[in-house]
Amino acid sequence: MALSPKVQEILSWYESDNPGTKANLARILMHGRLGGTGKVVILPVDQGFEHGPARSFATNPPAYDPHYHFELALEAGLNAYAAPLGMLEMGAAKYAGALPLILKVNSSNSLSRLKDNANQAVTSGVKDALRLGCAGIGFTIYPGSDASFDMLEELRELTLEAKSYGLATVVWSYPRGGNLSKEGETAVDVCAYAAHMAALMGATIIKVKPPMAHIELAEAKKVYDQMDIDTSTLAARTRHVMQTVFDGKRVVVFSGGDAKGAEGLLEDIQGLADGGASGSIVGRNAFRRPKAEALDLLDKILSIYEKAAA
Amino acid sequence: MALSPKVQEILSWYESDNPGTKANLARILMHGRLGGTGKVVILPVDQGFEHGPARSFATNPPAYDPHYHFELALEAGLNAYAAPLGMLEMGAAKYAGALPLILKVNSSNSLSRLKDNANQAVTSGVKDALRLGCAGIGFTIYPGSDASFDMLEELRELTLEAKSYGLATVVWSYPRGGNLSKEGETAVDVCAYAAHMAALMGATIIKVKPPMAHIELAEAKKVYDQMDIDTSTLAARTRHVMQTVFDGKRVVVFSGGDAKGAEGLLEDIQGLADGGASGSIVGRNAFRRPKAEALDLLDKILSIYEKAAA
Amino acid sequence: MALSPKVQEILSWYESDNPGTKANLARILMHGRLGGTGKVVILPVDQGFEHGPARSFATNPPAYDPHYHFELALEAGLNAYAAPLGMLEMGAAKYAGALPLILKVNSSNSLSRLKDNANQAVTSGVKDALRLGCAGIGFTIYPGSDASFDMLEELRELTLEAKSYGLATVVWSYPRGGNLSKEGETAVDVCAYAAHMAALMGATIIKVKPPMAHIELAEAKKVYDQMDIDTSTLAARTRHVMQTVFDGKRVVVFSGGDAKGAEGLLEDIQGLADGGASGSIVGRNAFRRPKAEALDLLDKILSIYEKAAA
Amino acid sequence: MALSPKVQEILSWYESDNPGTKANLARILMHGRLGGTGKVVILPVDQGFEHGPARSFATNPPAYDPHYHFELALEAGLNAYAAPLGMLEMGAAKYAGALPLILKVNSSNSLSRLKDNANQAVTSGVKDALRLGCAGIGFTIYPGSDASFDMLEELRELTLEAKSYGLATVVWSYPRGGNLSKEGETAVDVCAYAAHMAALMGATIIKVKPPMAHIELAEAKKVYDQMDIDTSTLAARTRHVMQTVFDGKRVVVFSGGDAKGAEGLLEDIQGLADGGASGSIVGRNAFRRPKAEALDLLDKILSIYEKAAA
Amino acid sequence: MALSPKVQEILSWYESDNPGTKANLARILMHGRLGGTGKVVILPVDQGFEHGPARSFATNPPAYDPHYHFELALEAGLNAYAAPLGMLEMGAAKYAGALPLILKVNSSNSLSRLKDNANQAVTSGVKDALRLGCAGIGFTIYPGSDASFDMLEELRELTLEAKSYGLATVVWSYPRGGNLSKEGETAVDVCAYAAHMAALMGATIIKVKPPMAHIELAEAKKVYDQMDIDTSTLAARTRHVMQTVFDGKRVVVFSGGDAKGAEGLLEDIQGLADGGASGSIVGRNAFRRPKAEALDLLDKILSIYEKAAA
Repeated sequence: MALSPKVQEILSWYESDNPGTKANLARILMHGRLGGTGKVVILPVDQGFEHGPARSFATNPPAYDPHYHFELALEAGLNAYAAPLGMLEMGAAKYAGALPLILKVNSSNSLSRLKDNANQAVTSGVKDALRLGCAGIGFTIYPGSDASFDMLEELRELTLEAKSYGLATVVWSYPRGGNLSKEGETAVDVCAYAAHMAALMGATIIKVKPPMAHIELAEAKKVYDQMDIDTSTLAARTRHVMQTVFDGKRVVVFSGGDAKGAEGLLEDIQGLADGGASGSIVGRNAFRRPKAEALDLLDKILSIYEKAAA
Repeated sequence: MALSPKVQEILSWYESDNPGTKANLARILMHGRLGGTGKVVILPVDQGFEHGPARSFATNPPAYDPHYHFELALEAGLNAYAAPLGMLEMGAAKYAGALPLILKVNSSNSLSRLKDNANQAVTSGVKDALRLGCAGIGFTIYPGSDASFDMLEELRELTLEAKSYGLATVVWSYPRGGNLSKEGETAVDVCAYAAHMAALMGATIIKVKPPMAHIELAEAKKVYDQMDIDTSTLAARTRHVMQTVFDGKRVVVFSGGDAKGAEGLLEDIQGLADGGASGSIVGRNAFRRPKAEALDLLDKILSIYEKAAA
Repeated sequence: MALSPKVQEILSWYESDNPGTKANLARILMHGRLGGTGKVVILPVDQGFEHGPARSFATNPPAYDPHYHFELALEAGLNAYAAPLGMLEMGAAKYAGALPLILKVNSSNSLSRLKDNANQAVTSGVKDALRLGCAGIGFTIYPGSDASFDMLEELRELTLEAKSYGLATVVWSYPRGGNLSKEGETAVDVCAYAAHMAALMGATIIKVKPPMAHIELAEAKKVYDQMDIDTSTLAARTRHVMQTVFDGKRVVVFSGGDAKGAEGLLEDIQGLADGGASGSIVGRNAFRRPKAEALDLLDKILSIYEKAAA
Repeated sequence: MALSPKVQEILSWYESDNPGTKANLARILMHGRLGGTGKVVILPVDQGFEHGPARSFATNPPAYDPHYHFELALEAGLNAYAAPLGMLEMGAAKYAGALPLILKVNSSNSLSRLKDNANQAVTSGVKDALRLGCAGIGFTIYPGSDASFDMLEELRELTLEAKSYGLATVVWSYPRGGNLSKEGETAVDVCAYAAHMAALMGATIIKVKPPMAHIELAEAKKVYDQMDIDTSTLAARTRHVMQTVFDGKRVVVFSGGDAKGAEGLLEDIQGLADGGASGSIVGRNAFRRPKAEALDLLDKILSIYEKAAA
Repeated sequence: MALSPKVQEILSWYESDNPGTKANLARILMHGRLGGTGKVVILPVDQGFEHGPARSFATNPPAYDPHYHFELALEAGLNAYAAPLGMLEMGAAKYAGALPLILKVNSSNSLSRLKDNANQAVTSGVKDALRLGCAGIGFTIYPGSDASFDMLEELRELTLEAKSYGLATVVWSYPRGGNLSKEGETAVDVCAYAAHMAALMGATIIKVKPPMAHIELAEAKKVYDQMDIDTSTLAARTRHVMQTVFDGKRVVVFSGGDAKGAEGLLEDIQGLADGGASGSIVGRNAFRRPKAEALDLLDKILSIYEKAAA
């Protein structure tokens, strides 16, 4: 189907990428209910790896079955579904071509005690993504961690390989470890820094957490104060984050943060949308709820972005 | 979008292929007006290479511009567009993700005098297909030619590589050369043999010419006579060809043959459709006509297959 | 220096190439007296390989020294200088960065008796071009030769490698061999076919001979007659050739043909310019003359293209 | 354009490099307002990675857009623009061939707490530089850091690869970590040592900080005292640093240090120029100012070097 | 020139090396004033890396220029010149073939604070040595250092690669780090152990410090006492060291140690020569002196070895 003018504009920002990478980005942007609007909502299901299966799926047992998540993303009309190797291997054939898939190629887990040097294991790769028919790979970096340089070097190699084969690269940029305080992980300056860093690494799509009002770094605080950068609302902070990714010329999706009430989540997403976010990535808030409830919530989220794009 | 039951059934025939190859086949089968029906109409534009630019485009000069063919395939609602490297390089970025592309990776040309040992040059490859965002590669074999074993060996290497990266392989199986008579090139026994050979080579999609009533091979003729195989109509012969590709369990598209009147072409296509053909591949008959006329003709062709699928 | 709008337009035609290849094409298009006009005149010195040294340089002995040709191209203000390995190796350091170089990576020679299966030897490669600081590689194909498929396959591999490293590919498309008559080698239909074939192979710049009025192929002649394609003047024939390279969206330079009087050459070049040629590639007509005379002739050639671009 | 005698002399110092590397060095030396003088001013924009986006761009918001920096370098007439992957990917196609680019292939960031073992992550590579059409790669080493041997080994591999492909290597040699005091990082003996070390590693262009009067190492102090080495003025210290890079036979550019008043910066640059510096690398002092102001400052800097070269 | 019987004998000790490595060892042994005698004096200039430029060159400023050292080695008639990458890159072309070069492929520096785990960075490699026309590579190991196993493993890989390409390997075996006392670094037992270890690693030429009378290791001391090994004079200790390298069947050169008066140095060298040393490696004692003085000193050193060989 012919690309919408908005999607064509977004593709024009990726001027150094080959047509293959552009095509996979286009597939994500043209798929689902938000297809063509330039807005994106993605379903990620990597929490089983990150927090263990019971914490992830026990509240909604059908979600133990990988097929459940393909169906959920399809029924809700989301743009893409992202998961680790095993989750995609069980479903990639059955749902071949049905929706854009993103292979999450590194993962952490709650059994590891690494904190200051928080890290992830590379658990799959570009060749896996190709054999599974994915539109791209997903990779997490932990800016601030003592292991962050190693993670950046892993990302750099995977990005070069992915781009050469025409895949998109989605970077989860989640500050943690090192000297970062817990509050600092979502501080607006740190969040903006994390988004900017992912853009500099050549990410096609960037995922960060919603930026909070706290400012972590003393040197940064001076600038925020001096320039009077508006960080009073989530919308204002989102606007700032979007500016730091090449003046808004990269696709940035925001996570929903820790599971909370649907109302709080929708309020947050309204703030993100008001601030010009490209979209959201909604995992636990979707698949831990019974399906009907999840579809209802996702419908409301998509509606927010539809309005924002109008 | 969720796969139709028909497409799911077709994918089930390709049980040894990885999800990537299935996804690319699904993309072709789910795209355009015939999307989901299991029927396929493809626009191939390799005639510039095969017969020279003037013979290909002079009757409809806008067709000299590669973008024209992307637009034609999109507007007509075809399933895919196939062309050699240069044609796709000029358009793959502008139309990234807009429609499934097939990179024709070998080509012949009318300046070559090779006849008995008719051959083609490999002019691009799997890595090109990936960087251009294609759903598959296309490759021509000339069963019967003294060069056919070389061509089959080239195909085998490209197929293995393509499948490992999740691409589909479309095989143009056009008997010629060696001891084959001109009539024999489209003889029903030879055509069926060519389709079967492509299936045996692991082709995802097979392209052959419409089978004629003539039977070329003496040993074959005995069997056709003995078993009283019906070759009386194009529909009957098509049914026979479809049977030879694993009892109909491969996608086979038929070319329209040499340019002729629209009526004759539509009659042929009705015959093919009646015989259970998966679809048609319509090149010269489309792009050598003025666009409005071409769209009209393609509309009629699609309608025939829509009815056949209903 | 900022790119001219004309050069930006030309670069936009190469939408699938990476920025490296675009940059090298831009270097050629922005260099010398025609820099920025979109017109191109290139000095090729491969005749020593093709016809032997005495036939190439005896009429102007300073031309035996490779440095002579770097100087000639610089003084005349040409866009680029193309030559085989040895010629570039002796000069590439002294003139490093002074002008765009094109490494001619295959060559034929007059000692070979191959005619019907005319061929060239691959004499250098992409890695050589990079270590010598070249903007691109040059490669000759002989459409029509019984060896043409082998040549196309060599070109395909070199093009893929060159593009991956950001180099441009210049294709000399010179029909000969097989069943082609001597007159047919420059027939307008064959010349247009050769240009189209190079474009389909993914050439960045195409070099063909000026098309003559003769039409070689019977099947083509029908179309030229039927469509009343104007082949009455060199300008008309050039216009036709330019149309066959993606509706004029590739850079095509024309050789000056066999050495002849300066007047005849300038007349031809005026015809080419009138027909919309991107430019000329002038070898023997330049370096076989005494330098002052050569500079005078090149000055006139550049003036023709300057006027054509105005 | 023919190389100036000064640039030819500089190229002669790089006698072991292949013509490709010389050509890329020549491109940098022949570009912009200082082209041909042997002097060099480079715009580096890696501060977003190093210090975060707000600290880098908030004072001049148009600088959030990567295209801004290409334009700034072009308008000011600088010799080259250096930045990390993402910054160059967004602009390398639009500005293809317009100015020499240097891909900064490693980067640190302020979220890392590594101090004694200060390090950087390798974030891109030689293949990226080639596909983006860069003239060279840039790499930072931290002499003194406990991680410095690892960094030198990474540099050694990248340099070998870059040189084999004809690229230049620019080394940021910034002592820090280990036992170095804060004052020691810019001590004249340490600065000279850092420059010398980069030269020994095979750097094409060396970047160091302006040397201060302090002497850090006790063993070195004895020699400076004994030989009465003049370290009284910035010019004298710069002269000493230039001597330590093979008796002035390498290109050395000096950073402007921490952002400060324009007057202080110009005074420093006058001192550097008086001491025979090859030039300056001016980042934050340029892009954190409004464009008009930045252009005015850069104009003054270029004028200082123009006079020094006269 | 025909190999002398002495050199033929020496080559016969390296029976497992390929002819290429033997040829490069022969080149070193046949070059300069000691050519053919089996004695060797080498000029090493890696002190700029090890101790910084001012400490190395300020007492004799012409030595800042890398060409100076090529000239010094040539004029003095030494066997070979050894230095890190940058020093050789600036001169390897000008002096191509004029004298045997040894590329020092790892280096330490005084800014590093590593002590117990003293280490060096690998700063160049075998491919560099080949492209620069070197006869061999040089590598330092620190037996005793906590990093020594890593260094031995690096050496093993480089040695294998060097030998496969026909290069010689020169090993600087300098005990330090770990539990070694300062005195122990040059203790006769440790020095002999270090020489033996280098021989066991497959070194072509071994470099150690002159052995002192001290014995470091308690277990070793028992044996030295029990067997009444003569360690009373430098000659006796040298004889012992030579015995430990396969009964004298490896080439071992001794450093001059820290700079001291010319007289003391010559006395040491007389002792080494009397003890059967293959020769000396004289760096700082040569290039830190004014050239005339250095040539005079080297003349005396060469005379000592000439007499020893007679």
